[in-house]
This record gives sequence, C-alpha cells and structure tokens, in this order.
Amino acid sequence: MAALAAAQAQTITQSKPNVFAARRAQRPSARFAVKVQAAVAAPEVTYTETAPDSLLRPGIDDPNRQASQQQPPPYSSLACPNPPAPRPRSMRGRFEKMIRGIQKQVCAAIEEVDGNTFRQDAWTRPGGGGGITRVMQEGNVWEKAGVAVSVVYGTMPAEAYRVAVGKDIPFAKDDRVPFFAAGISSVMHPWNPHCPTMHFNYRYFETEDWKGIPGQWWFGGGTDITPNYIVEEDMRHFHGVYKAVCDRHDPTWYDKMKGDCDDYFMIAHRGETRGLGGIIYEDLNDRDKEEIFAFATDAANHIVEAYVPIVKKHKTDPYSPRQKEWQQIRRGRYTEFNLVYDRGTIFGLKTGGRIESILMSLPLTASWRYDYQVDPQGPEQKFLDAVRNPKEQQWV
Amino acid sequence: MAALAAAQAQTITQSKPNVFAARRAQRPSARFAVKVQAAVAAPEVTYTETAPDSLLRPGIDDPNRQASQQQPPPYSSLACPNPPAPRPRSMRGRFEKMIRGIQKQVCAAIEEVDGNTFRQDAWTRPGGGGGITRVMQEGNVWEKAGVAVSVVYGTMPAEAYRVAVGKDIPFAKDDRVPFFAAGISSVMHPWNPHCPTMHFNYRYFETEDWKGIPGQWWFGGGTDITPNYIVEEDMRHFHGVYKAVCDRHDPTWYDKMKGDCDDYFMIAHRGETRGLGGIIYEDLNDRDKEEIFAFATDAANHIVEAYVPIVKKHKTDPYSPRQKEWQQIRRGRYTEFNLVYDRGTIFGLKTGGRIESILMSLPLTASWRYDYQVDPQGPEQKFLDAVRNPKEQQWV
Repeated sequence: MAALAAAQAQTITQSKPNVFAARRAQRPSARFAVKVQAAVAAPEVTYTETAPDSLLRPGIDDPNRQASQQQPPPYSSLACPNPPAPRPRSMRGRFEKMIRGIQKQVCAAIEEVDGNTFRQDAWTRPGGGGGITRVMQEGNVWEKAGVAVSVVYGTMPAEAYRVAVGKDIPFAKDDRVPFFAAGISSVMHPWNPHCPTMHFNYRYFETEDWKGIPGQWWFGGGTDITPNYIVEEDMRHFHGVYKAVCDRHDPTWYDKMKGDCDDYFMIAHRGETRGLGGIIYEDLNDRDKEEIFAFATDAANHIVEAYVPIVKKHKTDPYSPRQKEWQQIRRGRYTEFNLVYDRGTIFGLKTGGRIESILMSLPLTASWRYDYQVDPQGPEQKFLDAVRNPKEQQWV
Repeated sequence: MAALAAAQAQTITQSKPNVFAARRAQRPSARFAVKVQAAVAAPEVTYTETAPDSLLRPGIDDPNRQASQQQPPPYSSLACPNPPAPRPRSMRGRFEKMIRGIQKQVCAAIEEVDGNTFRQDAWTRPGGGGGITRVMQEGNVWEKAGVAVSVVYGTMPAEAYRVAVGKDIPFAKDDRVPFFAAGISSVMHPWNPHCPTMHFNYRYFETEDWKGIPGQWWFGGGTDITPNYIVEEDMRHFHGVYKAVCDRHDPTWYDKMKGDCDDYFMIAHRGETRGLGGIIYEDLNDRDKEEIFAFATDAANHIVEAYVPIVKKHKTDPYSPRQKEWQQIRRGRYTEFNLVYDRGTIFGLKTGGRIESILMSLPLTASWRYDYQVDPQGPEQKFLDAVRNPKEQQWV
C-alpha cells in the first residue's frame, strides 16, 4: 500500500476541458446511462506503481458498518498510506477478492498459451475506488486481450432508485442515492480467425441505506463466446461447461441465462447476435446473497476451462486471406454492438470512466466493407444463419 | 421508370425476424431517435436496375396539394410504372433534384481523381421513398467513398411535434404526425494518411398540415473535414471556401456554423473533436425558405472545390508505417463518433433504415490500440492539441 503515497506516483488528469459533456449527458443514450452517475464525472486518476491490496475505502467499507448510523470519516488515500484491509466477511471485500483472484487466474492461463505477458495499470481515485487494468497487445496468439477490475463509488438519481426498489419513497428533485459497484470485465481477441473471441463480466452492486430503507444489492455477469465459424464440438464444450456450472446452483438457470444472453447480444439493426452466446444474468437478487455469490464465483472459476482449450486447439490452424477478411468483418460487428448497445460500455463512456479500460474491449483492427456478400453455400453463411436465429442453437 | 416494375427487379427483405428490436426501441439512445420513426420500421426494399427519375410519391407530392384537404390515393409504385414526375416548383421536388445533381457532380469529380467508378444501388419502397447509394471501394486514391441520397416518409410522435412547434396542441397519446425528409450524405476515406477524410450532409424536412396547424419545415446540413495531420494551408483553403459561401448569404453564419460544427463533432468521452471542423446548421427555418435553399445549394455546390484540391495535392505523399498506424487510430475515433454520437447514424439504425447506406460512413479499416501514445513533440500531438481545443482553431 505504501506505493499509494509513493513520490513516484504519476498523477494524470484524465479529464480535458469539455464544455459539451454536460450538454450531451442530458441526452440519454441508454436506459442504464440515465440511471446512475459516477460520483466524479471527470475524475482525476492516480496511477500507482503496484496494485493496492484493496480498492475499497479503507475504514469505511467495514462489513459491520451501518451506513445510516455512521457518517464516512474524512479520508484521503494519499494521507493514509497504510489503511486497514477490509474485513473478509464484507461482501464488498469478498467480491473484490474473488474478482482479483479471477483476474490473476485468467491472465496466467492466457500468458501460458501465448508466451507473452500482460502489462498492468493500477489506478486509484482520492477517497476510494479505482481499478487494475491488465492488457496484452500483439501477443503470439492474441492480438489484444484485456482483463480489468474496477471499484466505483457513485450516486444514482432517487427516481431511478424508487423504480428499482418499487416503493413510494418521498424525495427531493435532486436527491441522489449512494452506490457501490465492483466488477471484472474482459475481452480476448485472437489473431487466428479459427480461434473465438471471448468476453466475460462479473459484478456486484450495492446501494447505501437511504431514507430508512436498507441498502439494496444486485449481482450481474456472464461469459459469452464469439467465433467467426461454427465448430459444433467447440460450442458444445463451451456451453457444456456453463450448463454444468448453472446446474450445480439452479437447474432452471442455464436455459434462462442462455436465452437472456441471446437477447442481450443482439445487434438490433443487423438482426443478428454478436456471437454464439453463453450465459448472462442481470439484477439478480431473488435469493440468498451467499447462494448468488457462490454461483458467480463458480462461473468465474470456469472461464479458463470453457475457453482456453478451444484456442489451444485452433491457434495454429491454417487460414486464407478471405477467412481473415471475414474475421475483420465480424470484428466490425463486435465494435457496432459494443458502441451502440452494450450497457457497460455506454455507462462507462457517459459517466467519466477510464476510457482506456472501457474501450480495451474493442478489437485491435476491424473492417467495414460495403454490402459484404458471402458464399451462400459456405461456412460464413452457416454462421450468419446461426446468429440470425440464436434461440434455435441449442448446443447442449 | 419502367425499371421499377421490371421483372428483373430483385425484392430483398431487409428485415429479419427480430423480437428484440421493439424492446430496444423503448430505450432511447439519442434525442433524435425518440423523436421520429420511419413509417415502416422494418421495411421491404426493392432494388431497381436504374435510379427512378424521382423518389417522391408521384401524384401525392404535388406542390399545390394541401395535405389536409386531400387524402393520399392508394398507390403502389409497382402498379404504376410511369407516374408523373413531381412539379418543379415543389420544395420537395426541387430539393431532391438539387441533391441528386450534387451526387452526380461529386461522384464525377472523385472518379476523375481516382480513376475508378462508383457502383450504384437504387432502391424504392412501396408507396414512395427510397434511395440511391453510390459507393467506390478500394479505389486508387480512396479506400472507401460513398454518396447516398434518400427520401423518407415517416411519422413522429405528436408530443415531439408539439415541443418543436412550441404551441399547446391537444392530441391523443398515440397520435403521430406525418413527415417527409430528403437528404444527401457522404463520407470519403482516402488511403494516404496525408489526405483528409471528408463528410457532408444536406437535408430538408417537412411535416404535413396537422390539426389545423400548417406544415412545418426545416433545413439542415454541413461539410466538415477530418485530416490526420494539420496542414494549415489546406485548412485555410477548406474553411476559406465555406466562409466565402456563408458570407454570400449571411455574414454572421460562418462563425456560428463553424462553432456549432466544433460542438457537434465532439467525441465527449475523449474530450476531442472527430476532425478539424467545417460548418453545420440544424433545424434552420428562421428566414424565407428560398433564402435557405439558395444557401444549401451554394454550400453543396462547393464541396468539390473545398475538398478535392487537398486530396490531389497529397495523394502521392510518401508516408511511414507509423503514419499509417496513426491514421488507423484516427479512423477508430471516427467510428466511435459515428456509432456513439452521430444523430443521423443513430436515427437510421433505430428506425429501420437501409443499414448498408447508413454505415457506408464507417472506414474500410480502423484500429484500437490500448493506451496509444504519441511523441509529445511530434505532429500527432499537434493534431491532438487542435482537436482538444477546436474553438481556438480559427483558420480564416
């Protein structure tokens, strides 16, 4: 933690003078984007030499603290070089610990296959929160692979909170409800068009006690795969791993989460999904918190098993220029989905998140060819048929 | 026009079964996207062998017709191979004629420099409306150049109309007001990083008479330039042409339209503009319709003069791999702007426009490198300084 206050710590102002941001923020660009807003819209980010033990607010995010009984003490991370680590029973602390372990596990597995290493950027914000972004670019197997952990403290409009909670709470027009969010997100783009892109995201969200209503909490997340060609055996493997994970926790979950994933990753203007699905769950709080946390942990712990063997199998497959071109077209579709529809991306862009961490999901290269046509008898057409009818693809 | 009914006409259903489009449409993604909706959300498009003389509704868009006095007769373009051309005094007809002339003029100038020709896709919709899209891909000078004309008939929610008109009009919840829109839009991406990308758009919008309120009308448009490096002489030329155009019509316009252009093309999450500006005007109806039409015509007639000499000057400039890489990074920024902020693009994507015409604006190739750094003393940094402070750049 000493690094936090280290004299070498480079302070970089991410915000640029921007009089238009405020005006544009009034034009809602996604449901989620109107709902919440980071505490600091254009925050100063401090890069640290090493990642701190925890990104939580030391001394505030104590597991037994009741927010309504205790005001946060004035605190600056720079003034407190050795804050106490959060106690392990807090869900905030446990979730952060889990996703940071997943970040290490996934990066190690990718490095082993690729032969290159991830670079790491750790950054914090005064008062708590920050992130650890790991990126490997132009490796041997992956052209771009990123795994980012972040912890965000922010506030959401009371009106959005009232809708979420479903109770008629009196509030003033500008009231805002404090929230906490911790998450991990990742995208991996391999060079070889026969190796799939993979994405995952696991997050935990809490509001503070507010106006006598206890704090609320939700989990969200999922893992999904985006090949350029259909290899049924691979898809049975990937979906099979996640069906087994789901079945251990709730036998109804795989079907629901697979269907929700097909819905979520729909590029509406194309009438096709981004890839061949996986699982997704959003705003999950319908059962004991421990049960959902156990599921999220299990799902995150099976990313490597679900994905890495597929890449190992295909990383030296020969491919033609035409197949590379098709991959680039699909990368263009990936970019369209992320910039036009992805809630996490839009949320990040509109709330002053760290742009390089948010847009690390975009491919190293992408292409848009006018009126691109594929051979109606070829494997590209077979792929298009699948992404245009995602619910008909039952892999397991 | 006979081609409209020609047996060879290929009917392609652009819409795919898509149960999510409706759900997503409820999540407003831009102010403009909520405002209007095409009459046919997922329309059938008919490709025609040759472009029809007019894309207006023959027999309906008569200049002297009062919409409130006359119901549109049942009409199908397929059943009426030789409809009368619209009378020239109608602004709808004159505007269409003007933009189709500009399409020919610009494409001819580009073909002369490039040595390749544009392909043309003409398409109509039953009942009127359609487009003529011209694209040249992988030419000698331009990697992708597109010029698209379209005519759209649709309806907008009465609430949005009431706000636009500024009068308290009684209406039922689901009332919608019919509108007409005709426009030309274009993007040109050259291969050489020393040649700028250029974009223009000129459009005319009308509502029908509705609930006793006469039809409203607005003009919009502009031309802007996106180089990768600053060549002051070139920018003085480009902006100089448009200052001269503006000054012929209103001496206050250049400063206003240059400033509005800097505002509009701001990539808010980057704190930088897409390029080095030009002019833009939106919802212009503050003076006689003829005056604005004369200005739009003048501005459109100076696209070639403003842009083509700059490309001619630089099309054989030598460049390094690093300069090509920088161009690709800037193409990524271009894509971010178009997919996240551009009203026309988002409007098109959300209202079931022809996707290939809307997204022809995206570059053939683009790149996203994590945390891309430029030489602080180099010309790339000088460019970044300019796009981060667009209003300080006074070229003329």
